[in-house]
Amino acid sequence: MSGDRLRVRMDRAARTGVKRVVGGLVRRWGPRRADLPLSTWRLARDASGALVLDGIELRGLLERRGSPLYVVDAARIISNAARFTARPSGASRSCEVYYSYKTNPVPGVLRVLHGRGVGAEVVSPYELWLALRMGVDPRSIVYNGPAKAPDSLALALDRGVGLINCNHRAEIAQLASAARSRGKTPRIGVRVVPPGASMGQFGERIDNGDALRAYQEALAQPELRVVALHAHYNGEISERHVLDAFLSSLLAFCDELKARLGLELEILDIGGNLACTTITPLSPVARRLAMTFGCEPGSRPPGSVLSIDAYVACVLERIEGHYAAAGRPTPRVFLEPGRALTGDSQMLLCRVLSVRDPHPAGLTWGVLDVGINAAEGVRNEIHALLPLVLRAGERRTYRLTGPSCTLGDLLYPAWCLPVLEPGDGLAIMDTGAYFVPFATCF
Amino acid sequence: MSGDRLRVRMDRAARTGVKRVVGGLVRRWGPRRADLPLSTWRLARDASGALVLDGIELRGLLERRGSPLYVVDAARIISNAARFTARPSGASRSCEVYYSYKTNPVPGVLRVLHGRGVGAEVVSPYELWLALRMGVDPRSIVYNGPAKAPDSLALALDRGVGLINCNHRAEIAQLASAARSRGKTPRIGVRVVPPGASMGQFGERIDNGDALRAYQEALAQPELRVVALHAHYNGEISERHVLDAFLSSLLAFCDELKARLGLELEILDIGGNLACTTITPLSPVARRLAMTFGCEPGSRPPGSVLSIDAYVACVLERIEGHYAAAGRPTPRVFLEPGRALTGDSQMLLCRVLSVRDPHPAGLTWGVLDVGINAAEGVRNEIHALLPLVLRAGERRTYRLTGPSCTLGDLLYPAWCLPVLEPGDGLAIMDTGAYFVPFATCF
Repeated sequence: MSGDRLRVRMDRAARTGVKRVVGGLVRRWGPRRADLPLSTWRLARDASGALVLDGIELRGLLERRGSPLYVVDAARIISNAARFTARPSGASRSCEVYYSYKTNPVPGVLRVLHGRGVGAEVVSPYELWLALRMGVDPRSIVYNGPAKAPDSLALALDRGVGLINCNHRAEIAQLASAARSRGKTPRIGVRVVPPGASMGQFGERIDNGDALRAYQEALAQPELRVVALHAHYNGEISERHVLDAFLSSLLAFCDELKARLGLELEILDIGGNLACTTITPLSPVARRLAMTFGCEPGSRPPGSVLSIDAYVACVLERIEGHYAAAGRPTPRVFLEPGRALTGDSQMLLCRVLSVRDPHPAGLTWGVLDVGINAAEGVRNEIHALLPLVLRAGERRTYRLTGPSCTLGDLLYPAWCLPVLEPGDGLAIMDTGAYFVPFATCF
Repeated sequence: MSGDRLRVRMDRAARTGVKRVVGGLVRRWGPRRADLPLSTWRLARDASGALVLDGIELRGLLERRGSPLYVVDAARIISNAARFTARPSGASRSCEVYYSYKTNPVPGVLRVLHGRGVGAEVVSPYELWLALRMGVDPRSIVYNGPAKAPDSLALALDRGVGLINCNHRAEIAQLASAARSRGKTPRIGVRVVPPGASMGQFGERIDNGDALRAYQEALAQPELRVVALHAHYNGEISERHVLDAFLSSLLAFCDELKARLGLELEILDIGGNLACTTITPLSPVARRLAMTFGCEPGSRPPGSVLSIDAYVACVLERIEGHYAAAGRPTPRVFLEPGRALTGDSQMLLCRVLSVRDPHPAGLTWGVLDVGINAAEGVRNEIHALLPLVLRAGERRTYRLTGPSCTLGDLLYPAWCLPVLEPGDGLAIMDTGAYFVPFATCF
């Protein structure tokens, strides 16, 4: 053995030793993965250990339909929609809900939502076309986005889309000019950015006066009916205090619009961003730890995350309380949920193609028949992974990769499971948000 | 103004001041963007400043065909293929080239390559199906990947695919069993990992003896004709010394196979990984600097990157020299280029939808009609961006985002261009590798 190769071996041995020690500490003291009860997803296991949804044995479904396979739980979509549109006790109204099409633009999913009184929030010419094509009443469509192509804006005006939110001041002039030339008077809002929030390409800032100037400009356009305020938190809302602060900023600006411009808004559109309780965001650091030390990343207990019911109750309580105290009419409240509405309503079934044990890196490696081509979300979020048939006995920590030919196709850096064999089926849970639209042919 | 809002304003003012000072330093002393001559891509400008490829005015093409639009330069694909398959002076042979389908699996592109004697390197059931469907001679197909689905392996055996590379030892047994049951004797290789290289899910390590054991096991299977060694560097090869070290490791292992197992390889398949000279990798740090300080990331001069010709000459010189010195027959050399073969042969034309100037963040912001949905590669690599019509006069530094409704849809954090107006056309260059396969419907 040459000196170089001996050195490489010693380096590897030293690194492996350090990893083992630190990995042990992280496993001992680090955050834990909390396995949720199967009933979380309306699942159960039959006597043979096979996973069953609503009487349907999922292994058999995968065999009949082929792998990989998305399975959508329409009943869960319906119950989530009902929670978003419910009137909480003490509230005089319910919220009006527009599903964020970009989250999961599958007609079958959208049809279930529209059948339950949910409207369409669209952000592209394609999504506008899709909503109209699916027969959504144009008045139940909200058109958002950082810029709207001229053809698409013309279509929205001609069909009488219910609300068009202008992203920034240049869009107000553009919309007014398009409305003038088509003889229309669209109902519009302006996207604003509350103090301290991330902005990027979106909205006009409240704190430097840009948002107020945008409303002034909009009100000066005779073709525009300025009825709404539009905002997103631009980050995950998982705790009540975050939601409270966000609403406070918006309500203070509503007061300013009334005081300075005499504008009493008809609609407060507070966007989306509510967390999905069964998904835990995976930070780059947590992923790196899992990669390096082979220990499972910790997940948050669903009870620690703001639920749909608590979110809706909090929103209406804050807004109705604010306007009641001021003796002014409460605006209609628009929500644009995506992740929280459909995230937990879909699973992605797949198969193990090959298992490498022992892999020189310590963990047992498995190659699945699905990877970042359809499950990119697993790289940034922790999604529960369930065996379609529970095998008794030994459990191992697996590193699970996709089938594509790139180092980056790594889905689960470390996940403890009963022993896997080629052909075994697995269910990646909570894939109903941002999985389908981010699918690639790679 | 409340105390809170005053504080937010002061924080912002302080941050803006710091950014301005540090940004000035980075701009003064940091790396520079090198604008390449238009002839790099066979482009020119006509008297009106319009960009022209082979007599075709690109602005007009975009108007006729719609935006966004991929434009493929078949002549460039053909000349790149000719360089990869050329016999360098002093060499007794040329390399045999198999295009990495996953890089750009567009039939029109593949057809041009196959018409010039380039074979297919496939890594999935779909790609194998596509190559066969396109009429590629099965003997001109190399089948790779971390795991091969049973149906697809059966198809490869039945059709007589030229070379199947086993990723790891479990695959050898699986392939032998499939071959036995179908009465076939496939020609195979084993994927190996040279010392110090990244491994992940790929290959068997040379340094711990796994690769040698894998060959022993393969040779013990009477159904398998063990003819090849397969390896990838698993990182970008842009400098000759990197290529030299990689080849040295592989040639040393070839000697070991001969000495220990009496195996004289017929094929040395050294994979892909050659850089594209006109693309500069963009590190997360460089991107962060561009995001924070609004200064353009620096690009590397194409002359500093190993060219196709230099790469091919170096590969053949090293391999032929090694075997000539040992008095043994030189193996055939297989290459599996992707990026270097088609990266610079395609451009993505798009339009400006909206411009925000002045944006409160300092730069001028533009929203394009294409974003990470079709140009994800721009987030990790520097791709030249050319106006379809060159407007004289002032230049500005733009931050260019895509049209989708997410903060992450940011393509160019900072890029200096002549003044842009809505409707203007732009060309994102060098999009012939990993753009199409990573496109999404988001």
